[in-house]
Amino acid sequence: MQNKILNLLKKKEGYISGEDISGHLDISRQALWKHIQELKDKGYVIEAVPHLGYHLESSPDRLFEFEVLRGLNTKTFGKKIFYFDTLTSTIDMAMALGVKGAANGTLILAESQTKGKGRLGRTWFSPKHKGLYMSLILRPDMLPTQASILTLLAAVGICDAIKNATGVTTQIKWPNDILANNKKLCGILTQVIAETDRIDFMIISAGINVNNDKKSLVSTATSLKEQKKDEMSRVSLLQEILRELEANYLVLEKKGASPILEKWRQHNTTLGRRVKVYCQHKHVEGEALDIDTDGGLLVRKDNGITEHVMAGDVVHCR
Amino acid sequence: MQNKILNLLKKKEGYISGEDISGHLDISRQALWKHIQELKDKGYVIEAVPHLGYHLESSPDRLFEFEVLRGLNTKTFGKKIFYFDTLTSTIDMAMALGVKGAANGTLILAESQTKGKGRLGRTWFSPKHKGLYMSLILRPDMLPTQASILTLLAAVGICDAIKNATGVTTQIKWPNDILANNKKLCGILTQVIAETDRIDFMIISAGINVNNDKKSLVSTATSLKEQKKDEMSRVSLLQEILRELEANYLVLEKKGASPILEKWRQHNTTLGRRVKVYCQHKHVEGEALDIDTDGGLLVRKDNGITEHVMAGDVVHCR
Repeated sequence: MQNKILNLLKKKEGYISGEDISGHLDISRQALWKHIQELKDKGYVIEAVPHLGYHLESSPDRLFEFEVLRGLNTKTFGKKIFYFDTLTSTIDMAMALGVKGAANGTLILAESQTKGKGRLGRTWFSPKHKGLYMSLILRPDMLPTQASILTLLAAVGICDAIKNATGVTTQIKWPNDILANNKKLCGILTQVIAETDRIDFMIISAGINVNNDKKSLVSTATSLKEQKKDEMSRVSLLQEILRELEANYLVLEKKGASPILEKWRQHNTTLGRRVKVYCQHKHVEGEALDIDTDGGLLVRKDNGITEHVMAGDVVHCR
Repeated sequence: MQNKILNLLKKKEGYISGEDISGHLDISRQALWKHIQELKDKGYVIEAVPHLGYHLESSPDRLFEFEVLRGLNTKTFGKKIFYFDTLTSTIDMAMALGVKGAANGTLILAESQTKGKGRLGRTWFSPKHKGLYMSLILRPDMLPTQASILTLLAAVGICDAIKNATGVTTQIKWPNDILANNKKLCGILTQVIAETDRIDFMIISAGINVNNDKKSLVSTATSLKEQKKDEMSRVSLLQEILRELEANYLVLEKKGASPILEKWRQHNTTLGRRVKVYCQHKHVEGEALDIDTDGGLLVRKDNGITEHVMAGDVVHCR
């Protein structure tokens, strides 16, 4: 109902009378008044002028379900949303919902995270209302060994979405960090919950620095606000991400991994460089040649031997 | 405290006076009486004779934490136990506890399951007090792609434990069904919760038909009771399983996969047979040649080509 009221308020340039709204939606004036109060509590600035009616002055930058759903043109991605003011981590919630059978495309959003998770047990700084903190539940019909293509797919989709929604050009650092001007803008974490021969579900999670101020970030990180010198709508960015992820997912289902790998190669900043990859108690140094379908990195060492590295942290040497 | 009282009762052949017990454990006679009542409620038959004291007539076949811990000679496996009368599935609980950081070796037990899970989305019939329904949380330091060896390890360990605890000889049908006289005695389900390059945790779950009556089982299933013509202690069997699993796990850490694979080959009933493997919308038919380190089955087809099958259901053709 609040969504419908907002729609009416947003459609109207000037004022719309309470009588018109309650008539249109078939609710009492008293019920309307209550809904308006609740919207105000959520941060919507709604002016009420006697004899004129209501006018929406401004909307808060919040990821409320009805804000995200308004104008979201996907088939399944993000069509079911679980929204929270604060979570330990959207991943924890996604895990619980996934175990209970949440559908493919279910989205978990939080305005802040108290224990935001990064790769390899690290944390992700998740201040309130500044970033996008999201987890998407997927149930792909593939073997667990094929799942890593979705890690690459996520990076590609988010890169393109950032470009489309904000104009900021980003690069992917293997395996799936997203950089702007060589600083970290977005981290992606892909998790698989699987039997030996069957994926139960996957969780693709992302933390994106959107409206973070430069001074709140460590020197190796950046935000879209820092890049654009302007704040931007997290809702629009999120909608674009969901659209890109779903589009790529459908391409993967139809045409296999090749188009995703090709896009990844276009966006990446690791291939062709000299790299040092730290992986499971050892490191591999050499030239980053290519990735293969399982997402692994092929590194040609100085002795001429090419090693396939599945995991780890990469340092770009020069 | 109830554990300590039981220990005293079990140590004593005849009667032990309330005075002795309360003196020994430094509790009041009233407190002792309350504990005795609670033990009776749990199914312990405790006789109380004036002037003589207490005598433990019989213990119920229950998987209470203190029963399992008494005499369990493992280092970590099963040292932390979550025991439930009924669960939807021990797996669901293991997933929730694993996400919250439950330690390596944590054991989840249920006397019955309302939605016991089998492989590939199937169910496991889990009547109360008849079977063993368990999930073990592991945190191995290996890559997700290496995890399937633990599926084989679980099958091997449970086979040996059944032999040690009951004398019943069993065979493993690829990948990890345990058969006795060609009927299914035990199902094992291994799940991995992982990032691309790091296992967060694994859940090894087993359902074992122990004291099920023949008439309650489908024709393709059997129980240890049917094989032995006698009921047996689920606690002893469970302790032996935990011991074997841990021993094999330590072997894996020290010596790698080879000894586990060798044991698996010894126990298996699939290799050398003509098989039909149903896997991901297709099937492969031929001779089951061997398994490899990732747990996959090598099948030599009639055209001479050997195919590596990772997943699926196998039918022994003859």
